[in-house]
Amino acid sequence: MTNISEISEFELIKRLEKVLEDCSLPDAANGLRTSIGDDAAVIESPGKTQVVTTDTMVEGVHFLPDLTSTQDIGWKIMAVNYSDIASMGCDPFSTVITLGIKPNQTVEALENLYKGCKNLVQEFGGYIVGGDIVRSDIFFVSATVIGTSQNQKVLMRDKAKPGDLVGVTGHLGCSAAGLNILTQSLDKTSESSKHFLYEHKKPYPRIYEGKFLLENGVMSAMDLSDGLVSDLGKLCCASKVSAEINLSSLPVNPYLKNSHGDIWKQYALNGGEDYELIFTAPQKVMDVIAASNRYDFSVIGKVTDFGSQITIKDENGNNFIPVSKGWDHFNSN
Amino acid sequence: MTNISEISEFELIKRLEKVLEDCSLPDAANGLRTSIGDDAAVIESPGKTQVVTTDTMVEGVHFLPDLTSTQDIGWKIMAVNYSDIASMGCDPFSTVITLGIKPNQTVEALENLYKGCKNLVQEFGGYIVGGDIVRSDIFFVSATVIGTSQNQKVLMRDKAKPGDLVGVTGHLGCSAAGLNILTQSLDKTSESSKHFLYEHKKPYPRIYEGKFLLENGVMSAMDLSDGLVSDLGKLCCASKVSAEINLSSLPVNPYLKNSHGDIWKQYALNGGEDYELIFTAPQKVMDVIAASNRYDFSVIGKVTDFGSQITIKDENGNNFIPVSKGWDHFNSN
Repeated sequence: MTNISEISEFELIKRLEKVLEDCSLPDAANGLRTSIGDDAAVIESPGKTQVVTTDTMVEGVHFLPDLTSTQDIGWKIMAVNYSDIASMGCDPFSTVITLGIKPNQTVEALENLYKGCKNLVQEFGGYIVGGDIVRSDIFFVSATVIGTSQNQKVLMRDKAKPGDLVGVTGHLGCSAAGLNILTQSLDKTSESSKHFLYEHKKPYPRIYEGKFLLENGVMSAMDLSDGLVSDLGKLCCASKVSAEINLSSLPVNPYLKNSHGDIWKQYALNGGEDYELIFTAPQKVMDVIAASNRYDFSVIGKVTDFGSQITIKDENGNNFIPVSKGWDHFNSN
Repeated sequence: MTNISEISEFELIKRLEKVLEDCSLPDAANGLRTSIGDDAAVIESPGKTQVVTTDTMVEGVHFLPDLTSTQDIGWKIMAVNYSDIASMGCDPFSTVITLGIKPNQTVEALENLYKGCKNLVQEFGGYIVGGDIVRSDIFFVSATVIGTSQNQKVLMRDKAKPGDLVGVTGHLGCSAAGLNILTQSLDKTSESSKHFLYEHKKPYPRIYEGKFLLENGVMSAMDLSDGLVSDLGKLCCASKVSAEINLSSLPVNPYLKNSHGDIWKQYALNGGEDYELIFTAPQKVMDVIAASNRYDFSVIGKVTDFGSQITIKDENGNNFIPVSKGWDHFNSN
């Protein structure tokens, strides 16, 4: 193992570049003209429309270094950024990564972080074109991703209309169950525990689903990072509408429903870090999507006129009040 | 004053958006289609070529909170990123800003940081289109800037050729003198001290100069952040050349030469944070630039064949050996 203080910044960058060599090469055909090594990366995007997003993970806030490998951190920082690109219906294109690193970290740990980044890029496309490495007393990693689309319009938060149905990709709540296992030091060996931990550590950005939604007429979407109720509330606020969702329609993995009593409801409604896409569209668009059978979607409710908060109906049609309100980044509640 | 833990993340973002309202508005005519508020900002760059860069400043490493106002930090994080855009000969276009903030910081301090960002954007152009705010035990701020150019080619580090002359914009060393005043608590009231502090706190990215160089046939440039010798070494390494510079040709402000004895040589050679542009070009290109009289440039040496390190000649033509080697981010020396 090599402590980062034993080598120069130049050598460190060279070692990290080496990890990325398959996903950072100049590639004129795809519009990337030069990569890591100059003051800025030169890009020429192949798409008509571009989007740009950034997300950061901080030690002790977004991950606990003792419980999460740097390779998993690398995967996740890319996944959360790619998830924002997915929520716009775009393809990821170029990424810059910033590391804030502590003097006692090892080069190997940082190489593993880049391996995690690279694994995700190899699965979902795009290029890592540059970044910055700074010294810090807190370990953090930040990525900024430029995405592209051949479409003039992209998926937006502010396009939901009363009468739209509300859809969601995949399953909800397993990531929160995984986080609970990590922080409470619960059993990690059962099949269900392994599933929850995997969902928490390796979220899959819904890049393909986002593009599919856009191509099939959906106009309104966002990704779920802070919890279904919290994030749907933001989408409704941006669109000046409200929404009603049915508890019994929420897509929840049987592992979660069978192992967690009624807690699955809180996890599915407010768990956070699902990185699924929530979207709204008229019935006829939803019918097209459902008929395709290409991806895993569920209709979980409907958009209503602006006025009330998000309403949740239980199995009997009664209002259900969740305990928590989702994740606020400055006021843990 | 309002502590950030007293308001929600949503409210904080709203307040910071308000500070930026003149430089973050959607502006279809300039290619920016939607701004802060969705998962990603939608941009449509007006230029032929794009560049992307990112730089981060961390409390205790890049600034000392007791000695630097958040408004100055805001100016500087934009300046250092815009300087990278300048070194490519491009115009700044869209910026995303990430803040890592401590629970005890005030909303007003963060608003001032954004005011500093906005002041710079209003001076040099571009838009602030989004970002991320995370909780952290260390205060940090990071920006990623996309720049554009109407030219197919941009200024690169790897285009210097033996026989080129070496040029530099502006003056060298004053920023280092300013940092010394701050860290050593020296007199801040003299005219020279005020000048050094200003140069350190409010570097001017050489956006206009960078574009002028590119338009007039320069192909090779970078910006000076770690010190002339260190950064010229990186340019030479990328171009597989060496360089010889003349101590007596270095552009140094009379304030610095008159007040610092021989220390001005160390500051000018290795001081760091000058954010001037260093560039190389054949004699005839340098003649055109010099003849224009539009900007402040100096010829300080020449590019030589690859082989030795950067050579520095003193007033008598003898080799001059600087004490320090410039700033390495992980090994302060």
